[in-house]
Amino acid sequence: MKDLRITALAGGIGAARFLEGLIRVIDPRNLTVIVNTADDLQRYGLYISPDIDIVMYTLAGVVNPKTGWGFRKDRFFCLKELGKLHGEDWFRLGDRDLATHIYRSWLLRRGWSLTEVTDTLRKRFSLRCRILPMSDDPVCTRMATDQGTFHFQEYLVKRKAKDRVRKVHFQGIQRAQASLPVLQAIDRADGIIICPSNPIVSIGPILRLPGLRPFLRKWRSKILAISPIVGGKPIKGPAAQIMSGLGMEVSARQVAWLYRDIVKVFILDRQDLALVPEIESLGLRVIVTDTIMKDLQAKVRLARVAYEALRY
Amino acid sequence: MKDLRITALAGGIGAARFLEGLIRVIDPRNLTVIVNTADDLQRYGLYISPDIDIVMYTLAGVVNPKTGWGFRKDRFFCLKELGKLHGEDWFRLGDRDLATHIYRSWLLRRGWSLTEVTDTLRKRFSLRCRILPMSDDPVCTRMATDQGTFHFQEYLVKRKAKDRVRKVHFQGIQRAQASLPVLQAIDRADGIIICPSNPIVSIGPILRLPGLRPFLRKWRSKILAISPIVGGKPIKGPAAQIMSGLGMEVSARQVAWLYRDIVKVFILDRQDLALVPEIESLGLRVIVTDTIMKDLQAKVRLARVAYEALRY
Repeated sequence: MKDLRITALAGGIGAARFLEGLIRVIDPRNLTVIVNTADDLQRYGLYISPDIDIVMYTLAGVVNPKTGWGFRKDRFFCLKELGKLHGEDWFRLGDRDLATHIYRSWLLRRGWSLTEVTDTLRKRFSLRCRILPMSDDPVCTRMATDQGTFHFQEYLVKRKAKDRVRKVHFQGIQRAQASLPVLQAIDRADGIIICPSNPIVSIGPILRLPGLRPFLRKWRSKILAISPIVGGKPIKGPAAQIMSGLGMEVSARQVAWLYRDIVKVFILDRQDLALVPEIESLGLRVIVTDTIMKDLQAKVRLARVAYEALRY
Repeated sequence: MKDLRITALAGGIGAARFLEGLIRVIDPRNLTVIVNTADDLQRYGLYISPDIDIVMYTLAGVVNPKTGWGFRKDRFFCLKELGKLHGEDWFRLGDRDLATHIYRSWLLRRGWSLTEVTDTLRKRFSLRCRILPMSDDPVCTRMATDQGTFHFQEYLVKRKAKDRVRKVHFQGIQRAQASLPVLQAIDRADGIIICPSNPIVSIGPILRLPGLRPFLRKWRSKILAISPIVGGKPIKGPAAQIMSGLGMEVSARQVAWLYRDIVKVFILDRQDLALVPEIESLGLRVIVTDTIMKDLQAKVRLARVAYEALRY
């Protein structure tokens, strides 16, 4: 039987771990990953795409397994000197990691689009799946909190997600466009997977690109989502703080509700079995399985469940 | 007796070693160093000032003592990754060293002048002497050789100064201006020292800045030069290849002749004692001493000889 062509919508660490499994279930050439870029930032004039890098490094097998971001066995010689020149930096850039940002920034300044740069980078990392930034236009997630409004990375990394979130803004989203390759990847896919990523700040910006949500709605029958919330807690990251700050329930049910118009199949963890009837009542087909990706085997298993669900 | 205010014209390694001695002879606050920037280059969009960095790192005590350039105990993690992304690079940029280039490039792009950036950098390296780029305008030394025309760094580092030099071009020099602080430093100095640097590619561009040579000529009585050529050989670098390629004699006499209109006092090595009458016949006062700077003591001794010669 022919492999399905899969397009995945992805944020950072959760998505990357799931995709590590997926590239072992399908031929990576049949996979396109659309990655959130609303967390992108500039440090010292270098353009950094945290989610793209996390996905790329993870799939290339060079990611730091302890943190889930950055290069494995990296050093911080350059950052230490930058700290002396400019003051301590809260955004940790390793020496190997910096090469990506230097190279990307250089190509962007020479007029390349982020899509072109990302494609060159993934080839250099010998990745056979395609990686697409959600847009070539700048979008910036700003977190309005009780302590002020911060860039998402500042909220997350510098302030450790401790401020009470009141609102999330996606600056620039009205003028941003999903790139043509993104639209084509959605159009041509046999199945679309919304990875277990933060529904607000990772998948949220992708869905908020003008026209994209209605476009996905048309393809609802081929779209599957995996809940990043298990037993009322996110597996990783600040989803709980953000969702509760926005007055939402921190649950797989809430995630299903957020995706209800664009998703046909919803995968949740056995711990959330009790939520099945309610989610089904939203018109979703629910699959219950183990979604905690504690090792590569678990990642592959979850990916296979998702893939088979799209096939049938 | 009050310290003289000294202004030095400098290239890279030879100058830096002499200045290491000089900052131990005089209060560094009385020293201004005007540095060649015609060797500057861009790699991966980063702006690199090799001579400024050599002088700065050397005076800050962080230079790699083996090479005379770059940081001591540096690593090349980032460059190795850049090599994978872009292909091997002949220009060696260490991880610590990169911080300088990243920071400098960032400030330049934010609209700072090279003079302002350099002043910020030298303060960050806790240097009390002033370091001035010769100009804020781009000048680029191009070496016309029998194998083609190359950027000076490409000629020197990549091609190891092996090509036969036919001509040296200073691209952009006609439109470049000595900065106001450079002119002030020359004007206000009690004594000016032309460091033992390559007279063609290090001191040459400084002297070729429009109007600068006539300006120095006015101050000839307070200007001293130290020969970088000893016994017919340069102490360091490609001066022999370049001078002979241009049809010049590789000798202290040739250097004195090149500087004859702007220099009053000329320091040469004991090995070149025989050249004294001829150099004196150019109208220069000649001082014969040991000029090989094999250790710090020798650097300090040479600096003291130069300083005392300017005093009397």
